[in-house]
Amino acid sequence: MSALTFGAGIWAFGQIVDRYATDGYGPSRTMSEMLDLAASVDGLECLDINVPFADGVSKTSELAAALAERGLRARAITPHLYTREFVKGAFTNPDPAVRERAVERVHEAVAVARELGAGYVKFWPGQDGFDMPGQADYARLWDLTVSAIRELASAHPDVQFAIEYKAKEPRVRITLSDAARTLLAIEEAGQPNVGIVMDFGHSLLAGETPAEAVQLVHRRGRLVSVELNDNWRGWDDDLPVASVHLFETIEYLLAVRRIGWSAPVLLDQFPFREDPVRALSQSIATIRMLEQVCDRVDLDELRDAQERQDALRAQALLWSALGAARETAGAAGEATGTARETAGAAGEATGTGTARET
Amino acid sequence: MSALTFGAGIWAFGQIVDRYATDGYGPSRTMSEMLDLAASVDGLECLDINVPFADGVSKTSELAAALAERGLRARAITPHLYTREFVKGAFTNPDPAVRERAVERVHEAVAVARELGAGYVKFWPGQDGFDMPGQADYARLWDLTVSAIRELASAHPDVQFAIEYKAKEPRVRITLSDAARTLLAIEEAGQPNVGIVMDFGHSLLAGETPAEAVQLVHRRGRLVSVELNDNWRGWDDDLPVASVHLFETIEYLLAVRRIGWSAPVLLDQFPFREDPVRALSQSIATIRMLEQVCDRVDLDELRDAQERQDALRAQALLWSALGAARETAGAAGEATGTARETAGAAGEATGTGTARET
Amino acid sequence: MSALTFGAGIWAFGQIVDRYATDGYGPSRTMSEMLDLAASVDGLECLDINVPFADGVSKTSELAAALAERGLRARAITPHLYTREFVKGAFTNPDPAVRERAVERVHEAVAVARELGAGYVKFWPGQDGFDMPGQADYARLWDLTVSAIRELASAHPDVQFAIEYKAKEPRVRITLSDAARTLLAIEEAGQPNVGIVMDFGHSLLAGETPAEAVQLVHRRGRLVSVELNDNWRGWDDDLPVASVHLFETIEYLLAVRRIGWSAPVLLDQFPFREDPVRALSQSIATIRMLEQVCDRVDLDELRDAQERQDALRAQALLWSALGAARETAGAAGEATGTARETAGAAGEATGTGTARET
Amino acid sequence: MSALTFGAGIWAFGQIVDRYATDGYGPSRTMSEMLDLAASVDGLECLDINVPFADGVSKTSELAAALAERGLRARAITPHLYTREFVKGAFTNPDPAVRERAVERVHEAVAVARELGAGYVKFWPGQDGFDMPGQADYARLWDLTVSAIRELASAHPDVQFAIEYKAKEPRVRITLSDAARTLLAIEEAGQPNVGIVMDFGHSLLAGETPAEAVQLVHRRGRLVSVELNDNWRGWDDDLPVASVHLFETIEYLLAVRRIGWSAPVLLDQFPFREDPVRALSQSIATIRMLEQVCDRVDLDELRDAQERQDALRAQALLWSALGAARETAGAAGEATGTARETAGAAGEATGTGTARET
Repeated sequence: MSALTFGAGIWAFGQIVDRYATDGYGPSRTMSEMLDLAASVDGLECLDINVPFADGVSKTSELAAALAERGLRARAITPHLYTREFVKGAFTNPDPAVRERAVERVHEAVAVARELGAGYVKFWPGQDGFDMPGQADYARLWDLTVSAIRELASAHPDVQFAIEYKAKEPRVRITLSDAARTLLAIEEAGQPNVGIVMDFGHSLLAGETPAEAVQLVHRRGRLVSVELNDNWRGWDDDLPVASVHLFETIEYLLAVRRIGWSAPVLLDQFPFREDPVRALSQSIATIRMLEQVCDRVDLDELRDAQERQDALRAQALLWSALGAARETAGAAGEATGTARETAGAAGEATGTGTARET
Repeated sequence: MSALTFGAGIWAFGQIVDRYATDGYGPSRTMSEMLDLAASVDGLECLDINVPFADGVSKTSELAAALAERGLRARAITPHLYTREFVKGAFTNPDPAVRERAVERVHEAVAVARELGAGYVKFWPGQDGFDMPGQADYARLWDLTVSAIRELASAHPDVQFAIEYKAKEPRVRITLSDAARTLLAIEEAGQPNVGIVMDFGHSLLAGETPAEAVQLVHRRGRLVSVELNDNWRGWDDDLPVASVHLFETIEYLLAVRRIGWSAPVLLDQFPFREDPVRALSQSIATIRMLEQVCDRVDLDELRDAQERQDALRAQALLWSALGAARETAGAAGEATGTARETAGAAGEATGTGTARET
Repeated sequence: MSALTFGAGIWAFGQIVDRYATDGYGPSRTMSEMLDLAASVDGLECLDINVPFADGVSKTSELAAALAERGLRARAITPHLYTREFVKGAFTNPDPAVRERAVERVHEAVAVARELGAGYVKFWPGQDGFDMPGQADYARLWDLTVSAIRELASAHPDVQFAIEYKAKEPRVRITLSDAARTLLAIEEAGQPNVGIVMDFGHSLLAGETPAEAVQLVHRRGRLVSVELNDNWRGWDDDLPVASVHLFETIEYLLAVRRIGWSAPVLLDQFPFREDPVRALSQSIATIRMLEQVCDRVDLDELRDAQERQDALRAQALLWSALGAARETAGAAGEATGTARETAGAAGEATGTGTARET
Repeated sequence: MSALTFGAGIWAFGQIVDRYATDGYGPSRTMSEMLDLAASVDGLECLDINVPFADGVSKTSELAAALAERGLRARAITPHLYTREFVKGAFTNPDPAVRERAVERVHEAVAVARELGAGYVKFWPGQDGFDMPGQADYARLWDLTVSAIRELASAHPDVQFAIEYKAKEPRVRITLSDAARTLLAIEEAGQPNVGIVMDFGHSLLAGETPAEAVQLVHRRGRLVSVELNDNWRGWDDDLPVASVHLFETIEYLLAVRRIGWSAPVLLDQFPFREDPVRALSQSIATIRMLEQVCDRVDLDELRDAQERQDALRAQALLWSALGAARETAGAAGEATGTARETAGAAGEATGTGTARET
């Protein structure tokens, strides 16, 4: 099994602000400083980079050089479609002139992506939606969304586009909120070169099971990028990988492996109160460790337990692979791997279970 | 605008139990008693009826007579696919024999539906899903779901089927959880005679905006039934219509009207602690009143406000139609209907707003 | 019944930023411009003002003059305890020097409050909490919180302090998250001059029933301020009053009236995409209209319905008062006000109900 | 460190029903069969037993003998206060006669508790609350709740009572919803012999951090019982321990240890689709394994990391103790235990960290 490789959203290394700490959660940094930090994260190979660029770089060629110098490359280009002029929407803005500027900004991003050899241009329509009941003509928002996707994708048939869905923030409610709705919009747009960025945290926020959603997107042939991070399910906290949801992350990595994912896994983190280099390094180390856990999962036994819907057994296999559940396995009779649903029969298990983990 | 007509799930009139009040929230009732209650609800014309039948009726012909006698008819037939033998799933049960029994039960429901002239057979796969992380092979659950839909729909090409999606309960997490995922499953099944039951409360539970979801389903040509009730968004409380979400219900009714819905609207309520006849009568009265509210909404002005994303204006129009916002309109300057985004300009409105509501 | 008076957080008139639209949701404004806008909101009499002041004012006396000039006054002073230096907490910051600066900033706010004659100094410890499981010594966070409250309140026994609780944002999870926990902290601090700011939206976010929480806080003698706004329950959206939760807002106003509230009601809104003057004007107009609705509620009948737990009747009374439910009342038999729990008896009501609303 | 001991709610071994699978999730069982199953769970020593008893036992003395025979004992007695006659509330029922019957049932439970030597009588007022906005007089519900607690506790000053709070289910919203509110009610009741049952899952459902809540309850001297299970935060799923929330469970066990808990830990599970003996055995095995994890946590280092709010370091210590994070520790530089907030410095760590886990 070849190891995963890693990228990150460059914003993790910039200054983060919010509506309260308007003076920023850390120092302001130039593009050059941000790239220095990115380069110092062990295992980080590529970046998702916003257009327009952060301060300190004006031409794409400069950025290309700065990346190359540090052994980094552009994995994705994300046009800023959610800044002040787009707060009432980019693709769905009520003002046609603003919609036009959004389209132009995507064209600009495409040019950058071509020059940097990025794998895809990302749409993150975070201001496209509404705020209050009664406010929106949903059918119109949908039409405008689909039309914009179609127009842009058909204008650049050789470029891969990918939509990162999200249920909310910054818009109170966002139109492309989850994987299935975004698949429907993409399929309605009818262009082959548009897919999905499956962000683990956005999937949790949407109420999805991330490991399920990533397979659903893959099944429709629309999986373009895989992103990891974590949150508490109620907001896009953009925390380090598996800082909250361990089993869901293992499951997700197993699903990513199952579909044969070989492109980089991107980290979309906002280390508000942490050093970004440490925060991202720890996430990569966590994923590498969890890949070893995945290596130790007995997939045949897991499939068997899943097929029988033996939830206790399936979980015991994950605990065992984690190296933490040996005693559980024996004590709970999980070692035999047989369904024992007759009442009272919990004690017969004797397996030492030692063979499985090492 | 022709008025809506109404139906209800027959379970509203039966004895409800849960895991705590196992002795029931009210008296046990025979089918005949349940039908008597249903017939006494003003405006209630049709029912969604479970197969197997409740106690007291054994043959479909008997039921047909009992319905006719009371001026009721069957709108839908819902096979019990979530009782004890199906607690690990109906269409996705690990045991092929159980899956086969689920299919047989649907065949049985089809026969009843034909005999009673019901509009559709409903699938509500509430036990098809999983409980814990790691337990499920999601791709397999999806495959089994799609296959079952395809098999059943193709076996009865003249029968309309409809899936009622739900995010959870009784299964901790249900595979067909929301509108978009269910549309994807239906489209993958590839049969024309399968659609969706859009239950307002299930839509809230799924984190959707019901008025948006119903238009999305309609857009794909898959809207088979519309159901109303209410809840607190975190659980399928099955409360009376608009008891919690007034504006969302108005929006939903406007959407239902916009797509030209002419079939009955069904009430899916569980009146745990209320008299079922009063609870359903009040819901119908509420909808009728809200239809008058919808009549009073100035749709041109609403469309205009929505197109400009003037949320304050759009909401003011709904308040006005509700008959409750006249003073608001004037005081907040809503009467002019023009966008006034220049800072400080709130005071110019003078309209008494009296013309709009009558 | 004397009418409510109104205030607002001054931040509604300033430039809002978030982590995406870092260039702001509207223009930057000086204190003077913000005050001009505030003064143009019909019915707005007082403000909650942050210390340090916004740009354009350096001395308290200047601000006092600017307020007086515009017929405004300071209702509350809120020290910025959540800006960059406090992102790991103000009262619970790991660094004692930062904790000391937080205390000093409160002293500074007290001086401003005295000079402006503000009713209270507000603590909003939005960065005091944690981000990930395992990170925090909760007992220590609690100790530090209680100690800081005690120290500050006892240092200024003649000043009223009030804590605005919130479950999350900006900290991923905040220590003083809801009304009851905050009451416990206040009571443990043991000072009489500390109370609570009951923000309707924060109450929803905490999973509370706002009308219940405000009575609980009042019962313990700790209610210092009442704030209104609205949200979707999952985040502090700071939307206009009753834009989402109409019945809950009516209930809240009834509760506020019941406890004899006579101080101003404050609006805590963030009009990201709306003109602030319109957004706040509309909220005030909404509350005024809902006060009339409250006037029309037959409180004796409501109390009777509540005492009998006749939920349908209680809701019907609110609908009637809203002026929107006359037909409901008749159709559902609510007009008689008697419990009719015998099955089938829904039709007897005849009351036209017309007397109540006009 | 002495090991934890274990008990369980006896309902885990009975037949579970819900509003859909009204024919039950498994076979019906007599009290004797339930006790047989309980006795077969390795490590299970005591039970929380409902009054009235399940079928098959009529006298307390019989039950005492049946328990003794199997080496079990009663840890708690829980009167059924949520069955049909109490669906509109037990202590807050609108009908004084029903409130009286609730009180009598508690007296009955006290008698059983005395005879069986149970540690406490549990109140679980799951039907005491409301369903819809506008329905309830919250102050009255609170008064009735506090009065009932006071009356019952003062009637039996030698008996320990404990309230198990819960936010919802079966009532749509329950009055005693979380730890802090329940503490306030208890303190208002003013009796020393009333405390709290801290159920991990109910704490998650209430939006609390369980490890924080248990310390808060202990701090007020009101912790009577500790229960473990798990859920998805949105409902009381009553799943096996740590099946969803691993780190939160570790944290909780560390908190339980920190406060010196020596009484049994109770398992409150509803194994809808699992063999109850396996499900509970696995939970006990999980806790035992996690106790070893707790043994391996370097508490001095954890305290140090927490005091510095070094979230990454604190989590790394938990991962290490879990035996799963060795590589992480090294790779992310966590082994040194020093704060390294200077940008870019992530690589210096070298510690093998091997000493800690074994």
